[in-house]
Amino acid sequence: MRITEMHITPIALGDPPLLNAAGLHAPFCLRTVVELKTDNGLTGLAEVPGGIAVDAALAAVRDTVVGSDPLNWHTLRARLAKRCSPETSVARGNKPWDGRTRVQVYSALDVACLDLQGKAFGVPVATLLGGIVRERVPYAAYLFYKHEGAGGDLAFGTDPHATGWTAARQAAALDPAGVVAQAQAMVREFGFESIKLKGGVFEPAQEVAAMLALKEAFGAKMPLRLDPNALWSVETSVKWGRKLEGVLEYLEDPTRTQEGMAAVRRAVKLPLATNMCTTSFDDLPGSVRHGSEDIILTDHHFWGGLHSSMELAAHCRVFGRGVSMHSNNHAGISFAAMTHLGAAMPNLTYALDTHYPWQWEEIITGGRIKIEGGSVTLPKGPGLGVELDRAALARAHETYRRCGIRERDDEPEMQKKVPGWKFQAVRW
Amino acid sequence: MRITEMHITPIALGDPPLLNAAGLHAPFCLRTVVELKTDNGLTGLAEVPGGIAVDAALAAVRDTVVGSDPLNWHTLRARLAKRCSPETSVARGNKPWDGRTRVQVYSALDVACLDLQGKAFGVPVATLLGGIVRERVPYAAYLFYKHEGAGGDLAFGTDPHATGWTAARQAAALDPAGVVAQAQAMVREFGFESIKLKGGVFEPAQEVAAMLALKEAFGAKMPLRLDPNALWSVETSVKWGRKLEGVLEYLEDPTRTQEGMAAVRRAVKLPLATNMCTTSFDDLPGSVRHGSEDIILTDHHFWGGLHSSMELAAHCRVFGRGVSMHSNNHAGISFAAMTHLGAAMPNLTYALDTHYPWQWEEIITGGRIKIEGGSVTLPKGPGLGVELDRAALARAHETYRRCGIRERDDEPEMQKKVPGWKFQAVRW
Repeated sequence: MRITEMHITPIALGDPPLLNAAGLHAPFCLRTVVELKTDNGLTGLAEVPGGIAVDAALAAVRDTVVGSDPLNWHTLRARLAKRCSPETSVARGNKPWDGRTRVQVYSALDVACLDLQGKAFGVPVATLLGGIVRERVPYAAYLFYKHEGAGGDLAFGTDPHATGWTAARQAAALDPAGVVAQAQAMVREFGFESIKLKGGVFEPAQEVAAMLALKEAFGAKMPLRLDPNALWSVETSVKWGRKLEGVLEYLEDPTRTQEGMAAVRRAVKLPLATNMCTTSFDDLPGSVRHGSEDIILTDHHFWGGLHSSMELAAHCRVFGRGVSMHSNNHAGISFAAMTHLGAAMPNLTYALDTHYPWQWEEIITGGRIKIEGGSVTLPKGPGLGVELDRAALARAHETYRRCGIRERDDEPEMQKKVPGWKFQAVRW
Repeated sequence: MRITEMHITPIALGDPPLLNAAGLHAPFCLRTVVELKTDNGLTGLAEVPGGIAVDAALAAVRDTVVGSDPLNWHTLRARLAKRCSPETSVARGNKPWDGRTRVQVYSALDVACLDLQGKAFGVPVATLLGGIVRERVPYAAYLFYKHEGAGGDLAFGTDPHATGWTAARQAAALDPAGVVAQAQAMVREFGFESIKLKGGVFEPAQEVAAMLALKEAFGAKMPLRLDPNALWSVETSVKWGRKLEGVLEYLEDPTRTQEGMAAVRRAVKLPLATNMCTTSFDDLPGSVRHGSEDIILTDHHFWGGLHSSMELAAHCRVFGRGVSMHSNNHAGISFAAMTHLGAAMPNLTYALDTHYPWQWEEIITGGRIKIEGGSVTLPKGPGLGVELDRAALARAHETYRRCGIRERDDEPEMQKKVPGWKFQAVRW
């Protein structure tokens, strides 16, 4: 089997005005869809965070990809490593999301090749990752502080896809009561059995109050997580972390660097999770040396694909780390890939993150993937088990062309609301 | 696909009187062949070190294996973990070989299931391990001190399979000149481009002299290794290790324990390899903490299978360890499995060990696997690419029944030559 074509399609999907440490989500989030075609008529799909840098990095390896054997990931990956500039793999940056393009190129090709392999062999991708240990993969409710508003093209009309959750999705949530109302609507709609709040927006006292309000509203059995996206100093993390002992399932990235996280971990009786201080295989020796976290949040887009995420899971098993999953905005191809990974990972110890409820559009046939009882059922059919809806893809690509956004940058969006607002790597 | 039958066949193969730290090889070595049959008519093969303990451990899980899906290794492995007694996974023991049965059960089932998967999908096992990075897998010449003699049934007649190497295989090698002659014959026959001497037999001065004689005979470009099987004290290892600086490619297990190896490593400018101080995933945190070795010698029989060996390879990449492979006596099924692993491992940095030239019988169709230019070409055909020769298997099983050996124990064999000889964990 040989790859004969590689198509790269940037798309934009509507996204509400969600607040985070870097500012405010724009009305549209960017994704890039990668399609591989083979000489035996198969199509393999993948999806990565969008933007001109990733798109250019993908286009730059097209002539390496075309002609390669999708059954031989090790060889393709070695060829890609020679083509991708090493400096694009060094630093993830200070933002809540990961700025490296190299690992995203690996991820796109690994996922698309696994989709092809699954289709060639007639088995799900999870089988190719070593076997399905769970058919239903648990996700967490992912709460955001937000301004009132729907985002995307919904600004220009009513939502034709309205559900019981739609009103709450469009409502403001700027204080503990708003956060609890959002959580209740999201849990009612999707049945989530874990809740995460994206923090790093308001001063720690208010965000801790929101977590206590969630505890009050949902009771002791609902696992809760807070993610200040490393905006707290070590001192602040220790002070407020102690107030969250016994409240949270885990505290995600309260502060920056492995040394900083390790200092917090020694002082606070609360598991710490990360997708900011230990974010690549190069970081693992430092993680072991410092003892910087209890849980590593893999994200196959940033760890270099599903095979790499399975390697990370093995590392977590050996070195006593829990493993869960980080998420950015995404569509159904990535949701399927995340679900196959969750289905195959023996030591998955926490419900996975997903932004999926915040979107309402879809680019795969059959429309939105169902979340029921807080879980997604592994898609049936070979490979990832999803196919492109060509008309929906064309619409999402047209939205990309029209919306004018070419790289994610939440700071100018925030400045429209708060003139002069600036991102700070450590705010409190 | 479901497994419907599991067959366990102990076999014995002729083995010459090879000397090692534990004593003397018996005239026959034991292996156990595992066959899985499926409801769609496929057969999956595996081979593990033999003996009544492993055979009993395999028989004890038969009812767990039968009915399982060979495409779902994660689930089968979790079920096996519940059935195998944990104490069988704790200690590998002080002998040069590994005494744990649990990992050998995992290994047998992982390999046989991968063989089934490859046959079901029509691809080599190496493809299922992530892709073939080399079609020709390099092995090292594995030298032994030995008494004159052929071993096995050859004691009762001439060798019907005689090759250019046969006379040297039957000759004594008890001093540096004998070792060099053995090496020259083995390299001439098989084209090996690396040489290892099994040490721990004579006092260090003599074994170091043998390595210097090999250097003299083969020149500076031939990589050389010595394996005293941890019979040296730290002090002895430092003293003789220093004399081997610039002579060896690596020194394998000069001494016991991760702490001991780390002490030698700090004092001697020579890479250290191990299959004795870091031998399981549970040992990896200690290896990182102590810095006990430069190279980990995987052996899929003792690390729990081919998937596990690939996990170990990823760990070695992340923590700056080289990776190569340990070997015991084996037949063609294991040789094929080792070769698939070597073909798929991106970071294989050294030629693999194999005892294969010391045997002359075979249990697979087509007879002996060819070693040419020091390498084995990845078998063609799906799965492992080897099939059982039923008549040869029956003969090897009959030899097992007849030879009376039920567990490997080199000490009484040695006592036949040297009355009162006792194994010592640290001899020099």
